[in-house]
This record gives sequence, C-alpha cells and structure tokens, in this order.
Amino acid sequence: MSAPYPTGEVRPPVVSLLTDYGVRDEFVGVCHAVILGSCPTARIVDVTHGVPRHAVRGAAVVLRNVIGYLPAGVHMVVVDPQVGTERRAVALRCEDGQILVGPDNGVLSLGWERCGGVVEAIDVSRSPHRLEPVSATFHGRDLFAPVAAALAAGAELAEAGRALDPDELAVIELEEPRVGDGELEAPVLAVDGFGNVTLHAAHEDLTAAGLRLGESVEVEATGERYLATLVETFADVGAGEILVYEDPYRSLALAINRGDAASTMRITEDSRLTLRRR
Amino acid sequence: MSAPYPTGEVRPPVVSLLTDYGVRDEFVGVCHAVILGSCPTARIVDVTHGVPRHAVRGAAVVLRNVIGYLPAGVHMVVVDPQVGTERRAVALRCEDGQILVGPDNGVLSLGWERCGGVVEAIDVSRSPHRLEPVSATFHGRDLFAPVAAALAAGAELAEAGRALDPDELAVIELEEPRVGDGELEAPVLAVDGFGNVTLHAAHEDLTAAGLRLGESVEVEATGERYLATLVETFADVGAGEILVYEDPYRSLALAINRGDAASTMRITEDSRLTLRRR
Amino acid sequence: MSAPYPTGEVRPPVVSLLTDYGVRDEFVGVCHAVILGSCPTARIVDVTHGVPRHAVRGAAVVLRNVIGYLPAGVHMVVVDPQVGTERRAVALRCEDGQILVGPDNGVLSLGWERCGGVVEAIDVSRSPHRLEPVSATFHGRDLFAPVAAALAAGAELAEAGRALDPDELAVIELEEPRVGDGELEAPVLAVDGFGNVTLHAAHEDLTAAGLRLGESVEVEATGERYLATLVETFADVGAGEILVYEDPYRSLALAINRGDAASTMRITEDSRLTLRRR
Repeated sequence: MSAPYPTGEVRPPVVSLLTDYGVRDEFVGVCHAVILGSCPTARIVDVTHGVPRHAVRGAAVVLRNVIGYLPAGVHMVVVDPQVGTERRAVALRCEDGQILVGPDNGVLSLGWERCGGVVEAIDVSRSPHRLEPVSATFHGRDLFAPVAAALAAGAELAEAGRALDPDELAVIELEEPRVGDGELEAPVLAVDGFGNVTLHAAHEDLTAAGLRLGESVEVEATGERYLATLVETFADVGAGEILVYEDPYRSLALAINRGDAASTMRITEDSRLTLRRR
Repeated sequence: MSAPYPTGEVRPPVVSLLTDYGVRDEFVGVCHAVILGSCPTARIVDVTHGVPRHAVRGAAVVLRNVIGYLPAGVHMVVVDPQVGTERRAVALRCEDGQILVGPDNGVLSLGWERCGGVVEAIDVSRSPHRLEPVSATFHGRDLFAPVAAALAAGAELAEAGRALDPDELAVIELEEPRVGDGELEAPVLAVDGFGNVTLHAAHEDLTAAGLRLGESVEVEATGERYLATLVETFADVGAGEILVYEDPYRSLALAINRGDAASTMRITEDSRLTLRRR
Repeated sequence: MSAPYPTGEVRPPVVSLLTDYGVRDEFVGVCHAVILGSCPTARIVDVTHGVPRHAVRGAAVVLRNVIGYLPAGVHMVVVDPQVGTERRAVALRCEDGQILVGPDNGVLSLGWERCGGVVEAIDVSRSPHRLEPVSATFHGRDLFAPVAAALAAGAELAEAGRALDPDELAVIELEEPRVGDGELEAPVLAVDGFGNVTLHAAHEDLTAAGLRLGESVEVEATGERYLATLVETFADVGAGEILVYEDPYRSLALAINRGDAASTMRITEDSRLTLRRR
C-alpha cells in the first residue's frame, strides 16, 4: 500500500442521501451530479435508496437508526409523496450540529430527536440555491440536492431560505409497545430485504415483561402462532428456526435463520406482534 | 459541522458511468477500480446501471436527459450488444467541452446533440490506454474505463486513438409525435422503475393539439381506452388515478398516482399512445 | 473540462467492499459512513453487494476474479453466516501488499492466493479499532469497517489485533474439472445476474480435451443435452443460441445470446456440466 494519505486535518464535506428513489433509474445519479456540481469535493454517502416507495415512517426509522453513525455533515432525506404541492421543504440544524434537509412531512423528525432536537429551522421551499425552473415532481434534483450541496460547501443555513419556528415542523409519532406479565405486544417498525422484522420495542421491554434470553416464546403474528427462541444471533438457532434477538440498532427483531420471516409469517410494516411466555 | 472545506479552486476530475450492467454483479465495481487505478482522485458518478439490458435507445435517452446536469468531465456509456465484434469504440469531445466515451452504436448521439455536437472524434478501439489482453465480452473494464480514466487524468484526446470524421458516427433517430386537432399521438421513450411512462412529446405538442392543463383526456394504449387528467404533479389526482404531466426532463409523461401505469396499462418501450380530447 | 487535477503524487487511500448485504437496506451505507468517519479521505469501491446471501464460495470467487484490478488498499469482504459466534475475524497482509479484512471462513482465501499468499495474519475479533458495543449481527459496521478504515488511514496491521499463524486460516478448496478425450466435465463456479454460467475450467482444459474454437459441442446439464458453439463473444451466435466462451476472468463460461442460460437450462451454482464432442 502507498504511504498513508494525510487525514483528519481538513475533512472533506459529507452529504448523505436517504430516499425511496430505487437504484434502477437515474434519479440518484442526477442528485450526485448536482451535488458535485456545486460542492465538487463532497463525499456522498448513499445511506439507502431502497426505502419502500412513499414510506415516510420507514425512512424516518432508518434515519433514526443510522444518524449516530453518519459523519458530521448534511443529510438529505427524500420520501415525498406530496412533492409539487404546498408542503414545505426544510433545512434544519440540530443541537449536535448535524444538518438535515428534506420535505416537512415528519421524515426528519426521528432523526433530529437523536441529535438533541432542532435549534434552527429554515423553510427552503423557495431557496436561492434551487435550480430554476423547479420541476413539479423531482425536488430531489431541483431543490434538496442543491440546498444540501450549498450548505455542505459552506453556505449559511440562515441564508438558505426563510426562518421557521421549529415547533411548526411535522413530526411522526410511533405507536408504543404494550408490556404485560409474560407478554409483550409491539408494532412492526420495519422489514428489511431479507425479511427480518424490526419491532418498536427494546430489550428492556422484554425484561419488563419477565422474558429472558435463552427462553422459548410463543409469537402471535397475523392470527397465527409460532415458536421462537430469544437469542443473541442467527447461528444460535438451527436453519429454518425462528429467533427473537436485539437488532444492531438495539431494537427487538424477529427472523428465521437462513429464511425470510416476513414472507413466511405474512408480516408487513403495518403488523403488530405479540411475544408470550409458553 | 467542520469548517468549510476549500472548494472550487481545483475541482477533482469527474467520470460518470451509464450502463446496463445492473448492480447485482461486480461489473460496475471493477470499472470503478480500474478508473481509480489510473485516476486516483476521480469522482465517479453512477448515473444508472439499470438501463434494460441491450437497450441502446433507452440509454441514449437517459444520457440526453441527464447530460445537462453532469459536471464537466468524461462520461462513459456502455450498452453494447455488439461487444467483441468489429463495431468501433469512440471518445468524443463536444462543442461545450464534455467528453463522451462508448461504443459507436448511437448510444452517445442524443447526448452530443445536447452538447452542441461533436468537434473531435477518436476511434479508441485499439487505444494505447486499453488493458491488454482486451477480453471479448467486457470492454467496460478493458477499454472504456481505462480510456475514460486516462482522459479524466489529463491525457490528450487526440492521443487516445485514431482520428475519425464525426459524420461517420452512428446516430439514433427518434420517431416523432403526430399532432392533430384535439389529438396527440406519441411513441413511448422510456418506462421507469415505478412504471411511469415518458412519451417523445413535449408540453408544446399538447398545446399545439389544443389540449390544456386541467383538462380530462382519453388515453388510448395497447388497444384500450382510459380516462386521464392533464396536471402538474402526482398529488393533483387521487390514488389510483391516471395523470399526464410534464416529467422533470420536460417530456410529457403518463403515470398512475401511487400505482404502476406501465404494468396496469400493459405499456412497453415499443408502445405508441394517443391522447384525445373527450 | 477544467484543468487536469494533480494526480499520482499522493493517492487517496482505497477501501473496497464485497458483501452479500444487497442494496435495498442501509447496511452498505452505514459501512461507508463508518469508514469515512475514521478515514475521511478514503475512496470506497463497492465491488458488489449482490453476492447471494451466505454464499461464502461465491464471494471468494468474485474476490479471486477482481483482486488483480483493485488498487493497492484495504479490501473488506463480508459474507458471514456465522456472525456473532466464535468464528474469528481477521486482517491479512498479502505478499504483494494488499490488505484483506473479513471473517475467517475461507472467503478471503482465493483472493490471497492471487496476491502471493499471506505474509502477516492478525486476529481482529477484539480489535482496539472496533465500535463498542459490538452487535451480535452486524460486524460489518462494528468490526470490519472500523478495522478496514483504521488500516486505510495508516494504522499498523500488527496493532489491529493479535498475531495469528497464517497456516491456521480457513481455506476454500474448489472441486477440479475432469478432462477426457473429447470431453470436459466441470463444476459451476458462479451464475451472474444475466444467467451467464461460469465454470471452474480454463481454455487450456478445453484444448486438453481436444475441443477447439469454432466447434459445436454437446452440453449436458441437469440431465438434459443441448447444442452449443465454442466462440469468442456473444454476437458470434444468433439470438437464443447457446455459446461457450472464455469469460473476462479467463474461465470457461456458458451463456445464451440475449437469453438467460441458467434459468433456461436450470443450472445452479451447485451444478456440474459436461461439454462433449459431437
């Protein structure tokens, strides 16, 4: 390997992207191009573009999960079923310095909660950084990417649009889990591409319900009952067996080792699951 | 966020890629590796790798749509059903300075039209930059990426191969729309991953046909008739309703709000559609 | 295009990634974020994330194929069905200077063979570079990416963990082809996203069997017999016809021009094929 490259003195600006654009079409590529056009040294992180189409809550949960791993920078989230209407576009500075950019539909709200809340909010719907004419259907290209790039290149947040009261921003409320004696009922938060199912519940909820690692439990999902084991990792159960484990973002999750729990058990992102002592 | 990174004085070289390689296999990754091998500071933009396999016209249309958003640089397009045969490989300088690299099968032609035409054309089939031995089936790796990287790193275009008369280059001709009184018939140009259908027609063609924003029209596609509304954006119609709108590249397009128009209406990239006053 | 950017004097560090994470979820994006967090100038090459889930041999073959094209750097391979168990995590220096990082399950072994073998092996399971707490299911994020980034940023390999005898490392053995008179039997090594089938056999094996370019052969696959032609490239046969050719990594391969050989002929990565003189 060549001599170590100098690092850490001046860090290139970081722009991350999180969308439901998919990877088949050129939508993401054009956003990259626009970003590099006005911030040529930006390092772009594609968090994911595989959020299910229009899944505002799903994208909000991904942002919540990953924000602690993202370098300081500008983080653009576009899941935007109301694109082209009067919904606001916003850029926000969080307490910890992270900048979030996206539509004001709640998709940013679980992220900023993890960053200490919003300390400065700007309505960028008619930002001077936008590309004119702004199309009615591709604000990622014409509005969000140019604003994110300008901010990454050092433009002042306050000059990206019109100041806004952070309390006016749309937020997403997640339905809470319900803890009983030997029983935990929780809504599904997300289903990943392998069919692993994340619940809106934490290990502490399991403990509060009196359930313990190593225990077998009954899982009720979509009207059917299954046997699962509370374990640490996939290889702790046999192939084809159901496990309940703590996912890498510290949420409880359900999976089938070497299988697809969501499709096997017909679980969707709107399901609720119950774990119950046997 | 850290102090603004210095930008704009020296811009890193840009290489963009547009192929039908897909994202499942390592084809794209190997091209990136080859590019960074000879141009280590290149910023690579993946425009898309999801062009339908062998869709030369489809890739040409994507290049036409995006070229105006790509930073100055070298733009490599590989959709190449004749790879390994005698078809030429070319590198071109456009009037506006953009460099295009790809097979000489017309895939670059709609792009250079947008860049003011070709001012210098080089046959790079046996370029000194190629990786020997050139495989018979992966010219992206062995020919196009090395040529693109060398040009991005500052090599002279004239020295990348043998000069060629630009008039000899293969071009793609798009079938034109047909405008009548209260009626517009147009070929389909592209279908995106969400089933949205782009027509080879512009808003002006609608106007010329006497149709106006806000109007309901009849759409004839694949022998069936549907009701659609001429609007600005998806949210202007209800879920499941058909809209006709101007897509972000200023072509007319047809979609179903929160649905998949192409599969619902059995429209393909070879279809022709008629919009008609009711 | 702007003036040539200075290149070649100081090369940015390179980290490549090769996983079965897919591109739907945020797994890859989070690894990028973690890498840029500790090595902000790293150039990240996504070799592919489309290796079939848990396909250790498949990923090992991809690494073998691409390693010669990867710039000097740190190459992280994560296909890791035993994540969270006692399997070792390792970082290795090869004879040619390349650094490989991944689980010790053989996935790196075909790569280091191409790099002259392993000259230094470190068990990084409890590396000081890891992100604590290490999750039980996402070592890409918590262990492999931080180790790879630290090494790319110039950390000493010896200080990334505990020294290990390279002879203790897990290796993958590929089943050999069998050459007869006018007959070549070979195991399938890989099936790509277009259904092209790579065999574990080389052009020399064909020659040893007495078969020659241009010849028609019988192919036996999954109990059925087909007619194929030994050619150089796809366009050498008609659409829908079967060809046998040398793939771009110098393995024999079988395909259907403009078709999908694997699904048409029901070939999987566990199949064996026989080519036979007619």
